[in-house]
Amino acid sequence: MQTQLLFTPKAIGYVRSSFQETSQIPKGLGAKHEAEGELEILPEFAEGLTDIEGFSHLIIVWVFNRSTGFELCGQPPCDDRAHGVFATRSPRRPNPIALTAVELLGREGTRLRVRGLDMLDGTPILDIKPYLSSIPEEKLRRGWLAEAEARKGK
Amino acid sequence: MQTQLLFTPKAIGYVRSSFQETSQIPKGLGAKHEAEGELEILPEFAEGLTDIEGFSHLIIVWVFNRSTGFELCGQPPCDDRAHGVFATRSPRRPNPIALTAVELLGREGTRLRVRGLDMLDGTPILDIKPYLSSIPEEKLRRGWLAEAEARKGK
Repeated sequence: MQTQLLFTPKAIGYVRSSFQETSQIPKGLGAKHEAEGELEILPEFAEGLTDIEGFSHLIIVWVFNRSTGFELCGQPPCDDRAHGVFATRSPRRPNPIALTAVELLGREGTRLRVRGLDMLDGTPILDIKPYLSSIPEEKLRRGWLAEAEARKGK
Repeated sequence: MQTQLLFTPKAIGYVRSSFQETSQIPKGLGAKHEAEGELEILPEFAEGLTDIEGFSHLIIVWVFNRSTGFELCGQPPCDDRAHGVFATRSPRRPNPIALTAVELLGREGTRLRVRGLDMLDGTPILDIKPYLSSIPEEKLRRGWLAEAEARKGK
């Protein structure tokens, strides 16, 4: 069914964070992502940022560019059991695409200052979208993650 | 800075929906996406669905495969003013990647029955991720969209 390239991914910019190694990034149950940093958008895409200041939160689509290959079922750092890759946020995915919701703190030209980064410095950014609506917490079921939290007494 | 391909996107499956043309998909202010349909995952990725049934909501990462080129600043269907592409959900993006949050209704083998589809039948799926947490509604600011709604008296 797939005879042609779906599209050619290109970086629209890069993450500027204090994380140089994955070991520095909080992981696992209850990890809070409060790190501040910048999204540096390439000048040729600057016009696409028009009116972005009005949004409090953004969804960043980025590339797990240090990850190689994928594992369909693996054990995440926060559990002692294996789960399917589509039920986890593992970086080893068939398409190494990651999503992070961040709070937009401010903009200076092509630099967006944000809170909530969990990416390494230099990570390529594919897209930015406004965060428009949420699933109410009372309607969310979090599957194995809730069970793993319960087992650890969190 | 970008001398090699970031990655080669591949479909992990396809959307089965009743939408054959984009004109059939609700758009604009207040559009509700309640359409039910299926995500048909390719057999070679089936193992990646392990434990997905425990999640009430999923984020589907998919390709705007009928879209060509991109427009950095354009007028969305729900407003009479132009906005930057990164402040909209326009399909004409530098990377034609789309996100949709759906409710998982059930699973039969490699077929996930979901509610909340806004994709055309046959749309390639890149990734599925569990929806783990939300930004509380009271903390969300929705920029030009809130202003456009106010102007239209919604």
